[in-house]
Amino acid sequence: MGSTWGNLLKISVFGESHGKGVGVVIDGFPAGFELDHGFLLREMARRAPGRSSMTTARKEADLPDILSGVYQNRTTGAPICAMVCNTDTRSEDYENLRTVPRPGHSDYAGGLRYRGYNDIRGGGHFSGRLTAPLVFAGALCKDFLRKRHDVVIGSHILHVGDAGDRSFDPVDLSRDLLLRLQEEALPLIDREAEEKIRETVEQARKELDSVGGVVECAVLGAAAGLGSPMFQNAESRIASLLYSIPAVKGVEFGLGFALSEKRGSEANDCYIMEDGRVRTKSNNNGGIVGGITTGMPIIFRTAFKPTPSIAREQATLNLETGKEELLKIHGRHDPCIALRAPVVVEAAAALAMMDLYLEAYGYDA
Amino acid sequence: MGSTWGNLLKISVFGESHGKGVGVVIDGFPAGFELDHGFLLREMARRAPGRSSMTTARKEADLPDILSGVYQNRTTGAPICAMVCNTDTRSEDYENLRTVPRPGHSDYAGGLRYRGYNDIRGGGHFSGRLTAPLVFAGALCKDFLRKRHDVVIGSHILHVGDAGDRSFDPVDLSRDLLLRLQEEALPLIDREAEEKIRETVEQARKELDSVGGVVECAVLGAAAGLGSPMFQNAESRIASLLYSIPAVKGVEFGLGFALSEKRGSEANDCYIMEDGRVRTKSNNNGGIVGGITTGMPIIFRTAFKPTPSIAREQATLNLETGKEELLKIHGRHDPCIALRAPVVVEAAAALAMMDLYLEAYGYDA
Amino acid sequence: MGSTWGNLLKISVFGESHGKGVGVVIDGFPAGFELDHGFLLREMARRAPGRSSMTTARKEADLPDILSGVYQNRTTGAPICAMVCNTDTRSEDYENLRTVPRPGHSDYAGGLRYRGYNDIRGGGHFSGRLTAPLVFAGALCKDFLRKRHDVVIGSHILHVGDAGDRSFDPVDLSRDLLLRLQEEALPLIDREAEEKIRETVEQARKELDSVGGVVECAVLGAAAGLGSPMFQNAESRIASLLYSIPAVKGVEFGLGFALSEKRGSEANDCYIMEDGRVRTKSNNNGGIVGGITTGMPIIFRTAFKPTPSIAREQATLNLETGKEELLKIHGRHDPCIALRAPVVVEAAAALAMMDLYLEAYGYDA
Amino acid sequence: MGSTWGNLLKISVFGESHGKGVGVVIDGFPAGFELDHGFLLREMARRAPGRSSMTTARKEADLPDILSGVYQNRTTGAPICAMVCNTDTRSEDYENLRTVPRPGHSDYAGGLRYRGYNDIRGGGHFSGRLTAPLVFAGALCKDFLRKRHDVVIGSHILHVGDAGDRSFDPVDLSRDLLLRLQEEALPLIDREAEEKIRETVEQARKELDSVGGVVECAVLGAAAGLGSPMFQNAESRIASLLYSIPAVKGVEFGLGFALSEKRGSEANDCYIMEDGRVRTKSNNNGGIVGGITTGMPIIFRTAFKPTPSIAREQATLNLETGKEELLKIHGRHDPCIALRAPVVVEAAAALAMMDLYLEAYGYDA
Repeated sequence: MGSTWGNLLKISVFGESHGKGVGVVIDGFPAGFELDHGFLLREMARRAPGRSSMTTARKEADLPDILSGVYQNRTTGAPICAMVCNTDTRSEDYENLRTVPRPGHSDYAGGLRYRGYNDIRGGGHFSGRLTAPLVFAGALCKDFLRKRHDVVIGSHILHVGDAGDRSFDPVDLSRDLLLRLQEEALPLIDREAEEKIRETVEQARKELDSVGGVVECAVLGAAAGLGSPMFQNAESRIASLLYSIPAVKGVEFGLGFALSEKRGSEANDCYIMEDGRVRTKSNNNGGIVGGITTGMPIIFRTAFKPTPSIAREQATLNLETGKEELLKIHGRHDPCIALRAPVVVEAAAALAMMDLYLEAYGYDA
Repeated sequence: MGSTWGNLLKISVFGESHGKGVGVVIDGFPAGFELDHGFLLREMARRAPGRSSMTTARKEADLPDILSGVYQNRTTGAPICAMVCNTDTRSEDYENLRTVPRPGHSDYAGGLRYRGYNDIRGGGHFSGRLTAPLVFAGALCKDFLRKRHDVVIGSHILHVGDAGDRSFDPVDLSRDLLLRLQEEALPLIDREAEEKIRETVEQARKELDSVGGVVECAVLGAAAGLGSPMFQNAESRIASLLYSIPAVKGVEFGLGFALSEKRGSEANDCYIMEDGRVRTKSNNNGGIVGGITTGMPIIFRTAFKPTPSIAREQATLNLETGKEELLKIHGRHDPCIALRAPVVVEAAAALAMMDLYLEAYGYDA
Repeated sequence: MGSTWGNLLKISVFGESHGKGVGVVIDGFPAGFELDHGFLLREMARRAPGRSSMTTARKEADLPDILSGVYQNRTTGAPICAMVCNTDTRSEDYENLRTVPRPGHSDYAGGLRYRGYNDIRGGGHFSGRLTAPLVFAGALCKDFLRKRHDVVIGSHILHVGDAGDRSFDPVDLSRDLLLRLQEEALPLIDREAEEKIRETVEQARKELDSVGGVVECAVLGAAAGLGSPMFQNAESRIASLLYSIPAVKGVEFGLGFALSEKRGSEANDCYIMEDGRVRTKSNNNGGIVGGITTGMPIIFRTAFKPTPSIAREQATLNLETGKEELLKIHGRHDPCIALRAPVVVEAAAALAMMDLYLEAYGYDA
Repeated sequence: MGSTWGNLLKISVFGESHGKGVGVVIDGFPAGFELDHGFLLREMARRAPGRSSMTTARKEADLPDILSGVYQNRTTGAPICAMVCNTDTRSEDYENLRTVPRPGHSDYAGGLRYRGYNDIRGGGHFSGRLTAPLVFAGALCKDFLRKRHDVVIGSHILHVGDAGDRSFDPVDLSRDLLLRLQEEALPLIDREAEEKIRETVEQARKELDSVGGVVECAVLGAAAGLGSPMFQNAESRIASLLYSIPAVKGVEFGLGFALSEKRGSEANDCYIMEDGRVRTKSNNNGGIVGGITTGMPIIFRTAFKPTPSIAREQATLNLETGKEELLKIHGRHDPCIALRAPVVVEAAAALAMMDLYLEAYGYDA
């Protein structure tokens, strides 16, 4: 129930932060697709920790071991299982969290849900590390969508704290920009934004704190007419996956919340003909209307809360004594979880799009 | 695929704006629950058009006809089918929309998806009228959750255009407030906000325009420990339903997007003991952490775009001629769709909560 | 959970034997398909009671009222809701069955499942009458499959008690035979079998008893390569639907149970080339191998138990007194439920095939 | 789609016969259950090859490696992934099967389904070896059901070719018998049947042939009132899993096909009171009526076709030349696949029962 997603493409995620590893079973992926290991590894590396001073000191290569579903380097149509082993874990850091739950973390709620039997080390199955298998599955779909359907997915850091990049142009968006963003350690449309963002993160880290951020993602080239009006529409599928990423607290499409302050005459996207194709002059709806893709770029933003694990001492409750207690979290944590999120957000988009394509075109998509 | 939702509670919505009616099949609802028709009708009335000068002139009582699943006024455990007949439809208004699609509307995307066979009258299955059966299903669940589990759900208009109410206190929230809001035609925490909101809507209407808005919703009294860490977590379920409501373009939980600008030390909710119960001092996470309920009020906001159908003339494309054309939309439309949305948003919350309760406690919940 | 089925095509069945009626929501049916009302009504009539002296005296036309999803006589792609109203019900017959459950019936188990709140009149949602909406949904799919994919589905009474027809030739099966069987009140390959079957049923009725039977069904012209090796394979989908038909207690494909007595050298179907098409010389596997269609006729048999409601007095238990009690069932019942089953079995096959086609070819199939 | 099953308990199976291994992700299993490795290994051993002269010469210990979901030897509530590595594979045996498909095997249909990209070695994902992860998942559920709900599941070889055991007594069935059968290499109620069965299998092997068989399974102690009247009823769930086991061609509950030859007066199970419990005098319905458990033993039979891979030379088609060709299958194969099937059939029953219990009682079941 909890860790299985999808309609046509089924994703089953497993693993824990400090167990043997994390993995995914991808069921329903078309047969005959050649694996581009270079691309898959680059995508895994985008999420992996230890790439810069701004991420956790935990160092893992995150090399996925493909356990099934691939033969002679092509997908067979059978479920693809891929696993990333855990190598650099220090479990002694997490001993007392059952009685003294970390603020902003799943320790307390998870303990109730699983009656105290959840693997608490590093957050267990709640860990952000579970996004590694999502990235693998997403990368496979992203590659498929690009090669078979010319769909390109990219994202950037829209802002961190109060330091920000500019937004995607929702009408005039280039494949090159999206592909360039996929290559960057800190994906930004405007490179000049980098310094301010680095400062914001560094400042938080120095103050033994963390900071939130927003990732903006675009899907370019998606066919028009994908999705459905009600449940399981294009926005529902994307949003339900995004909310499965730890720390996500907001999702908006097109102008999103800003639309609530607009007039209809400003918000409506007028249809125009451009080079023989139907397009809209503006794209305030972010490429999805009535739950169905319009053929315009799909644009959405995802808000990440600040990493709840901060080095600074915090007040919390000792569940046994019922008394307040000061908690000092050891372990190694990202000062800004949003920085590693772009590839995860893109993975969610890729999985949802893949599901929509399979639904529309059948299992060979 | 498109109009069926749910895991334990399955909702299958059908109908069109200008067909025989709209309805819902609710599968998995516990047996033996007595129907409170007064409550159900009041909820239907909250969504129904024609309640005030601020909503569409279309007048329909929206009395649900219960076709199955109820015997001697109690649910039997079998699927409950309820239908609301359409009575006041004027279909001549919608003839030319296949070739001249309305900006901001599903006409174009829906036409592609269904190859021109979709019922275009009044938006057909894309119509906001499809929220009537959602409200029925939601009202049933809301009543069940309140009577069996003491869970109360309420919402208010947070803002319309730039006119706004104040936000819920996410920590100190009373059942009475939520129940009072359920009774109000224009639910507001601060009644003084009413005049400015009315003015904003009236102004838009006068200018043959429409305006967007945000609905804030709270679920009070939900058990702690409901949900799952990954997919189908509490936020994913609620969000996927909210995005099924026409015109929704943004969803955020707790502080949502504002969390992206916070430090961890500000954002984290510290655990405290209060009257022998574990609570959090703040509730920036909106009652859900790691995808699981914490026992604190669940708080989320939903952004509605302005009604795309506006009386003002708009430029659009004639798909046959490929030429720009001016479109004047007749028909009757709400100047602010968000005003009728609170009960729909609450329905989505109730359906998601019901699904979570059934998952946790079994089919008698 | 209980009354919703399907992957790509979702079927949600509702209603009770003695309530307002029975119906179905069909979600995912392709847009643009023209309804052949004559065919739909003939199919409904095949299942409807009162066609001959061998079926229940209950007389209902079973005219489906299409409530949604059809516009200008074509499917719109939106959910199709169809309902058959109950007109000839005599509910006084069923009063005491909660305390004195009928042997072989769902009264006792259903009472436990729904804690005594199930609608017991006529079996409520457990009634064989719930197959009417299945037949409607199946007829729509059957018509679609024949017109779009040249797939023909037909069935016959293989035997009733010990009176029997001969089996389908699994290799050399003609469309004409299947279409002829669809037309017949008592579908038999060998018309000479009719008299013995009529006698068997009449004899049972005269003795205030009932008798079981087997329906054999064939799907001709299905594409090769539909389905999957594991769960949700072609056999699993068909079987799970067949077991949803009341009174079904056995399902077998190809030679079925008889294969358990064969040698591999007898059982294996050898591939041959015939008129440039790959076929098998025998078809002991009934057109499905490894869960996937082979392109040969799909053949399966479904065993129906005798109607549990018999006019003869039976011993049962009074649940209140805990004492044995003699029960005389009034009401009107078929002496052989299998006789009305062929069109229901075909409907199950059609629904499963439709699901497989949508999965393979996408939502326009 | 294809390799994911379940409602509350989700099972995702992956792997190939000659790849790295086969495995399963079990999502939704309750937290806190202690693993009994001895039991799990005994169950795996029951299915594993090489136990007797009657099974394939392939020798593998089938030790499952638990990759996630277990901490300090208890389930955590997170998905449990277990994998069995392949060690003794000889892939050179399978080279030419794409062009010269084996009769009775999935080579041809699978090749079409996956456009020639399926891993053909040893049947790939179609292999009977995929039942190993099913057995692991089933064993876990079987142990849970026995310890938490006192439900015992057992099965025996009912017949092989024409050599047979006697049937379960569907009314007076003992836990001891079922537990004894779980221990036996060749589970039989009547040990005297063993010699004839061994002879039948040996004879088939000597003649370079194989033989089919039937497994009869019983679930004892299941609560009354589990399931639903329509889809996803107890029989549908069990049957859909059974049909996922390679080589299964028939499933029947209670008297099954024999009920089609009975009168209602013989077939109906009369309710009686016994030791203060409601029971039925006979159990011709096999413990399930109206899709819901009655509290009587659940009894069903599963027919297995003869192993399609036989050593004897067979005629088949060369798909490239379009000419008939003689095929000699090398590799190592069971002369009677049914002999290793009891534990697999029990696993299917355990998984379906677990799903029903979770639905009824919630995620802690």
